[in-house]
Amino acid sequence: MSLANYLWGDAELDRRQEILRALAQSPLKTVCRNPYSLSRKDLWTVRLQQNVELLQMKMRLGWSAQHYLDALRIACPDVASLSANYRIFLKNLEAQMSDDQKAYWIPKAQRFEISGCYAQTELGHGSNLRGIETTATFDPATDEIVLNSPTLSSHKYWIGSLGVMATHALVVARLIVKGQELGTHLFLTPLRDLETHDLLPNVTIYEQGEKTLGTFASMDNGVMKFTHKRIPRAHMLSRYASLDCDGTYHSSQNKKHAYTSMVIIRGLMSQEIGVDVAKAIVIALNYTKFRRQFNVKDGQETAVINYASVQSRLYPALSRAVAMILVGREIRDRVDDLQNNQLEDLHLQTVGLKIWGTEHGVRDVEVARLSCGGHGNMAIVGLGSMYAHLSPSRTYEGDNYVLSQQIGNAVVKHWKKNTEMTVPALSYLALLRNPQRMSQKLASHSADSFLSPDVQEDLLERRAALMAKRHIRDTEEGKDTSYDVFQLAMAHADLTYWRGLQSKLRNVPQEHQGTIRALMNVFALTLILEGLDAFAGTQYLTEEDISGLRKAHASCIASFGDHVSSIVDAFGFTESELNSAFARDNQTPYEALLETAQQSPLTDNRFIRPTILRARNLWKSYDGLGAKI
Amino acid sequence: MSLANYLWGDAELDRRQEILRALAQSPLKTVCRNPYSLSRKDLWTVRLQQNVELLQMKMRLGWSAQHYLDALRIACPDVASLSANYRIFLKNLEAQMSDDQKAYWIPKAQRFEISGCYAQTELGHGSNLRGIETTATFDPATDEIVLNSPTLSSHKYWIGSLGVMATHALVVARLIVKGQELGTHLFLTPLRDLETHDLLPNVTIYEQGEKTLGTFASMDNGVMKFTHKRIPRAHMLSRYASLDCDGTYHSSQNKKHAYTSMVIIRGLMSQEIGVDVAKAIVIALNYTKFRRQFNVKDGQETAVINYASVQSRLYPALSRAVAMILVGREIRDRVDDLQNNQLEDLHLQTVGLKIWGTEHGVRDVEVARLSCGGHGNMAIVGLGSMYAHLSPSRTYEGDNYVLSQQIGNAVVKHWKKNTEMTVPALSYLALLRNPQRMSQKLASHSADSFLSPDVQEDLLERRAALMAKRHIRDTEEGKDTSYDVFQLAMAHADLTYWRGLQSKLRNVPQEHQGTIRALMNVFALTLILEGLDAFAGTQYLTEEDISGLRKAHASCIASFGDHVSSIVDAFGFTESELNSAFARDNQTPYEALLETAQQSPLTDNRFIRPTILRARNLWKSYDGLGAKI
Repeated sequence: MSLANYLWGDAELDRRQEILRALAQSPLKTVCRNPYSLSRKDLWTVRLQQNVELLQMKMRLGWSAQHYLDALRIACPDVASLSANYRIFLKNLEAQMSDDQKAYWIPKAQRFEISGCYAQTELGHGSNLRGIETTATFDPATDEIVLNSPTLSSHKYWIGSLGVMATHALVVARLIVKGQELGTHLFLTPLRDLETHDLLPNVTIYEQGEKTLGTFASMDNGVMKFTHKRIPRAHMLSRYASLDCDGTYHSSQNKKHAYTSMVIIRGLMSQEIGVDVAKAIVIALNYTKFRRQFNVKDGQETAVINYASVQSRLYPALSRAVAMILVGREIRDRVDDLQNNQLEDLHLQTVGLKIWGTEHGVRDVEVARLSCGGHGNMAIVGLGSMYAHLSPSRTYEGDNYVLSQQIGNAVVKHWKKNTEMTVPALSYLALLRNPQRMSQKLASHSADSFLSPDVQEDLLERRAALMAKRHIRDTEEGKDTSYDVFQLAMAHADLTYWRGLQSKLRNVPQEHQGTIRALMNVFALTLILEGLDAFAGTQYLTEEDISGLRKAHASCIASFGDHVSSIVDAFGFTESELNSAFARDNQTPYEALLETAQQSPLTDNRFIRPTILRARNLWKSYDGLGAKI
Repeated sequence: MSLANYLWGDAELDRRQEILRALAQSPLKTVCRNPYSLSRKDLWTVRLQQNVELLQMKMRLGWSAQHYLDALRIACPDVASLSANYRIFLKNLEAQMSDDQKAYWIPKAQRFEISGCYAQTELGHGSNLRGIETTATFDPATDEIVLNSPTLSSHKYWIGSLGVMATHALVVARLIVKGQELGTHLFLTPLRDLETHDLLPNVTIYEQGEKTLGTFASMDNGVMKFTHKRIPRAHMLSRYASLDCDGTYHSSQNKKHAYTSMVIIRGLMSQEIGVDVAKAIVIALNYTKFRRQFNVKDGQETAVINYASVQSRLYPALSRAVAMILVGREIRDRVDDLQNNQLEDLHLQTVGLKIWGTEHGVRDVEVARLSCGGHGNMAIVGLGSMYAHLSPSRTYEGDNYVLSQQIGNAVVKHWKKNTEMTVPALSYLALLRNPQRMSQKLASHSADSFLSPDVQEDLLERRAALMAKRHIRDTEEGKDTSYDVFQLAMAHADLTYWRGLQSKLRNVPQEHQGTIRALMNVFALTLILEGLDAFAGTQYLTEEDISGLRKAHASCIASFGDHVSSIVDAFGFTESELNSAFARDNQTPYEALLETAQQSPLTDNRFIRPTILRARNLWKSYDGLGAKI
């Protein structure tokens, strides 16, 4: 097995290579070398045209939905409007429709005869389903369901692909039958005329406007209001709940589905963020190998990558990128043969994955840019837009502070009930119950001892135990833990990722063992070093221990340098994927920056000269009036 | 004295009120409610027109350069192209020109008859002056100086206002006389024809292109190459160095000037970043008071500001904003009556100010956005563009990792020479020399004890001493400290800011003592809590100490809540200054978001319908070919 197969996974690497070959054979006709000069409307239009070109390629080559989604990620930076139909819309049809409904609707969505979106979030509430205000009232007289937006805050908001594209929405609304509240359900709702794309009656839609930092520019998020909009009863998704024509309601709880859909999404987020971070680090490595500053030797200054200040930022970030990819995939793979009693464990692992992956991912992309110094701030370098793209992930699919409480709550629940043995992700509670082990000091002090997996796991588990102890005590004392619980969640997730990456060591191909072990140590010792605050006030570590730890970390960083290029090669990102002035095959970074300037729309300034000349002659009208000019 | 005077300072508050009155009387004609929908070229043009309108106001009302710069900050978000002339160009003319040169040039620049920029940074080097490659060779035959850009990397780059506006540049170049290298000097160089704005011969200029995240869109940074460009010898700035017509070179070192100009710039950065952070926090406070989530009481959910997860992020950020403003101003004020023996101390304080202010400032603006949850990601909220604006500050005016080494080097130098008593900013070295004090445990453990200034200062000094100890040892062992020294610099700056803010307590007006003391405690205890990692492996703090510290911190945060609105009122930001959908006088945040959507350029989608309809009919051409659609 090649290192590329190990990192990407066999199935994804095959798809990836197939897509890259297809793109090489018939490149997109819509080219956009400098998206940063365009208005948002023009950029949205360019990206949509690229989406449609790829849709045609999908049909021509018989690609699956997954092929198409991968192709969008490879060929269209930012989030594609058409991905909403193939990702969240189709997946929910598959999961929540009855077989009859599926047979009718899924082919239409697959071939893009209809174009769907998923409408859950409202102005007033997002992931807190209980706060959803949109109502779906059953009218037995006409056998219809009436959707209504009763308030300003019940406007659907942030709905991807709704603003312009969608013909249908899966609307999350509170079902009301005969005055009785039956909780939120999904309703397939036609929005726009299939022939003309005009809005249908009783629904108002606006495109949401520009997102911050220019991110998600190519996604038409939408705002929607229903005014007593009627849809047939048959449009209620009825795999797990259904309504008879007389209003009789049937439901079958499916807890497993609710868990697994989030497990899949969060595992996927971890993988995708990992790939984004890897790209950013590859760009930064390219530049920091080229850029030279200070310390002249043999007539040349030192390449920036050779400084600890750069290595100690980029190498751990690369190790985290690989961890996010491998652990994210592993967790998604586990969903298929999942037992019911493993649901909570997997849920708690993926909550940690979401929090940890988004926090570190955003920071690591930012660090890639900062490592490139001032020139990293040119748009054409691409690192800024990667940051912009990841930045909102900390507050979507559950705000990280709110989400952290799920881990805090599970800790308190299992601590009280003495049931942590049923949830391997909470192993640190067992450690916390063992006062003898908790009061032990670290057994060995040498730098080498920190390379032992047992020592690494013990340190991470102990830190999580200390955070859990604090959380349990604070909860007992009635404190508002909503801020501090975030640190517990991060320590919890450190352990999840460490264990996940450790377990992946088992199937590393022999010839790449050295590379992945070196990466594992950089990953682990960075986690431990950056979590030392938990040990202040304890006796567990001595000054010598910390000194040994720092020594081990420095030596792991230094020796990881030899393995970086094989990891970069295994990722094998193409020039057009990286899309950066710092990663061009036939130009140095300086040459690419100079070319960018030559092409700036402001370089020919004749359009503004009258204003400039007027400004420089203004003084003639005011001089001599005693002004302090 | 009002709290507003205390925060803004008397002179700045007077200017501010004068400007706000002038703007209220004659508002700018060029209005731009939604800059986020524009292309960069269109946005640049709008901002330039606003710059020129304000220039006319300056002349009409007889405003000083400082008035004009303040007005640009108040009325034009992002960095104004015309500020370069009034800020960096004029200040350098004043500081570096001979009296004769000043008499001729300064009035021209003051009245904008010429428009200047400061051209130091090159593609290959920025703040490392020794790396500058542009040459200025004296030609005695013609009594001229010949400017030349010998390489690709010697192109001037990042020069603000050069790309479009500037008629003149102050060029930093290496003076060469009779084959002898005389170091970098400043040369006033005409670039563009004053009548036509055409480029003059032997100079090539490009506008640099788009900066990342859309930041500095209204600044026309420029790239410049000289091809044996000749200027009169008299254009060499000759306050501290001059050249006779026979090539005889005279120089008088002025170390004080070199120090003080950076001290002033960095003090100003601290103040300006503080104001930016304060604006961001005011916007976030507005929204988090409005937004309600979870925990229904009396029929309403709880306002988000009431959660610890929000207070513990926004309140410390507000305290840091105030510290940046007060301490930045204090340090600038000290420059005027500075003794030569205080230069190094002030230099080391402002290096810390730059690093600390930019690191915390960027994070705090980001935290303001994250505290607003998903909706904080709408461009119209304005928090994203504030982040974008501050984000590059960590790598300009000296990259923070490179700059940190100045503190590290001073620590090692004074440690070896036993001379820290001459530099109050390095007081922690004296503590480090006292093994008895270093091995002491914290004297008192109660929560209240952490409110004592002595205890706070001791904790911060001890942490800086521990970091210094590590740095000295690493340096002695020959390690590359370029990464770790950053933590020393931050601990060093914690102390600078803590002492600066503490000293400002003395002149707080009596009726605001409670407010500023509450702010001081939030500031200090947050610093201490977030720096606990330094105490891992030491005996200084016990578990009880940390528990007391956390208790004290929580209680300070809670009681600071009562003082927040008086601080917000004292800042008194106007609606148009905040320029945020979350801070409008006559609209709630939800109403403002809805209005934004109604006005989105994509809401009327007729322009793209042909493409959409084509995409939804594509399947008809491919169906039945056995595709996996």
